[in-house]
Amino acid sequence: MAFVTLRDVARKAGVSTAAVSQILHGKGRFSAETRELVHKTVQEMGYVPDQRARSMRSSDTKTVGLLVPDLRNQYFADLVSSMEDELYRNGVSTLIGTSSENVERQDAFIENLLGQRIDGAIVVPQGVESPGVRSLIRRDLPLVFVDRRIQGVESVPFVVSNPYTGIREAMKDLIAHGHRRIGYVAHPSLGSYSVNERETAFRAIAGDLLGAAATTPSAVEGTGAAGVVVACDADYESRREALSRLLDAHVTAIMCGYSPDAITIIGLMHDRGVELGADVSLVSFDDIAAFRLMTPNVAVISQQPELMGRRGVALLLESIRTGACGEGRTTSVPTVYMPRRSVSAVRAAA
Amino acid sequence: MAFVTLRDVARKAGVSTAAVSQILHGKGRFSAETRELVHKTVQEMGYVPDQRARSMRSSDTKTVGLLVPDLRNQYFADLVSSMEDELYRNGVSTLIGTSSENVERQDAFIENLLGQRIDGAIVVPQGVESPGVRSLIRRDLPLVFVDRRIQGVESVPFVVSNPYTGIREAMKDLIAHGHRRIGYVAHPSLGSYSVNERETAFRAIAGDLLGAAATTPSAVEGTGAAGVVVACDADYESRREALSRLLDAHVTAIMCGYSPDAITIIGLMHDRGVELGADVSLVSFDDIAAFRLMTPNVAVISQQPELMGRRGVALLLESIRTGACGEGRTTSVPTVYMPRRSVSAVRAAA
Repeated sequence: MAFVTLRDVARKAGVSTAAVSQILHGKGRFSAETRELVHKTVQEMGYVPDQRARSMRSSDTKTVGLLVPDLRNQYFADLVSSMEDELYRNGVSTLIGTSSENVERQDAFIENLLGQRIDGAIVVPQGVESPGVRSLIRRDLPLVFVDRRIQGVESVPFVVSNPYTGIREAMKDLIAHGHRRIGYVAHPSLGSYSVNERETAFRAIAGDLLGAAATTPSAVEGTGAAGVVVACDADYESRREALSRLLDAHVTAIMCGYSPDAITIIGLMHDRGVELGADVSLVSFDDIAAFRLMTPNVAVISQQPELMGRRGVALLLESIRTGACGEGRTTSVPTVYMPRRSVSAVRAAA
Repeated sequence: MAFVTLRDVARKAGVSTAAVSQILHGKGRFSAETRELVHKTVQEMGYVPDQRARSMRSSDTKTVGLLVPDLRNQYFADLVSSMEDELYRNGVSTLIGTSSENVERQDAFIENLLGQRIDGAIVVPQGVESPGVRSLIRRDLPLVFVDRRIQGVESVPFVVSNPYTGIREAMKDLIAHGHRRIGYVAHPSLGSYSVNERETAFRAIAGDLLGAAATTPSAVEGTGAAGVVVACDADYESRREALSRLLDAHVTAIMCGYSPDAITIIGLMHDRGVELGADVSLVSFDDIAAFRLMTPNVAVISQQPELMGRRGVALLLESIRTGACGEGRTTSVPTVYMPRRSVSAVRAAA
């Protein structure tokens, strides 16, 4: 049991919670047997009579925990800042932690957070169920997931980004510029629900708009219309490989589902003498400053982190106010395509 | 009193701390008068008998609070991430909060942090003494200031960035490229110790290397050698004004002490048709991704946030280990100049 409550002790000892509480505070009139039983049960179960637990239940800490994967990723810095601003406007303080895209570190933060005085938590989880996530859910604590879902966990309210709206607009723009062979860089090893959803959406929309099922570089031939999907990891070498395979497959445009991949790939294109927005067009997810400031500036699909943050905070505050946890409502925020100069008319096939 | 301790209660009631503790736990043999006195004192002083306080004193929470001004500012995201990584390597969890460059919000976070289970704190303070900072210092809690000092507070260990090394290298590079009339954009309204130190360093080094005391746009004449200092605030209009005044004063190069100013000013130069790195050279503080990715990429003076973060963590962990708080040692980390294409040979005077 991750966190033993007064109620757990009472149930085990077969007495009321009020009795446990009074005995622990040396109050009330109880038999020596009952006192001993309660003290023994407390010891056996490792229960800690705790000011924190009390203040948590009375929902008056006015503090919320936020967990995001990585503050060096501008998208998450924007998301967490918008949530923090919105919570502050509501008189609520924020304790932020990061998982560094690592389940073990995520769980270490969660374990710590559960020992702090908080009223609730907003979490961008790593994609898998883990001991930390299980104890978060088991605790009777208002909780919202933002951006990423955990497969199999349906009981937690979730603010999801809808990748279809933005990808469809981006694909239409690429097609209007003459692109028919369009590459997509996936990143399944991240284990991110939302990043994987983007790949699914790309495959569906490419099939729809290009009139051919999305495929792989090794399966594609010639230069005809096709969505070509490659996967990469978070290292330079696998991104180099992903770009090579797409260029060898004669794509004229590339879409990246994970912005750190796009940043490395743009550098790699430069090193190979492939001119961004001239030789190859590119669209990335995430409207981060770097993409606005590059020359040419980079077309993006924005998840609207400000809006997602505000929705997440609204769900959490409602849950804290009403005391209703564990209702797995989903709020969907549409993605938005922002055309920029990294997308231009296709050149004659090389 | 921001935080009432058991000792405060004991002193006020004129009894031992052990007596207060026992009476609050319903233990020990005390007269009815003493019990009543202690309970009354507890109520009057608002003391909360607290599990947290106990665990804090035993230094076993393995948790540290971090306060930075703004996570949307990539420099602080890098700084806080490096500290978080280093703390995690040492088995310590981190609770992060931001002040949003606002003293009131800083103090709200500090107040909240002091109610959490922490072993110590690393703070990038707003520049002024405030009630929050005073209660942080008054608490017997290991504490380190990083990046910014508070005028008049000498008792807290401090990791300071030395702006002289980087500014001197940058000025030498500008002078080697033929620049003699060099502008500097200051930002005194931020109230940041380190940002203000940069202005002081620029004035000293400009005086030294250009052979003329730094001056203002209204006081400078002609196009001869001079360091020309303007101030701006965090809004578009005042940055536009700052750039106009520098260009009117015939500077051929600009140095920015605060990177958000540089980002706006680069956009403003573009809008005015002033070509970065050709018409006007520019050097900014902070080695952030945006500056590396722009075309031309932007020469920077790096504060080495990774190194500053590691030094700050080392000071704090030592303070936690030894229990020695309040020793105001200063660790200085040199700034480093990174030449890039935003600095080029001066053009013939316009």
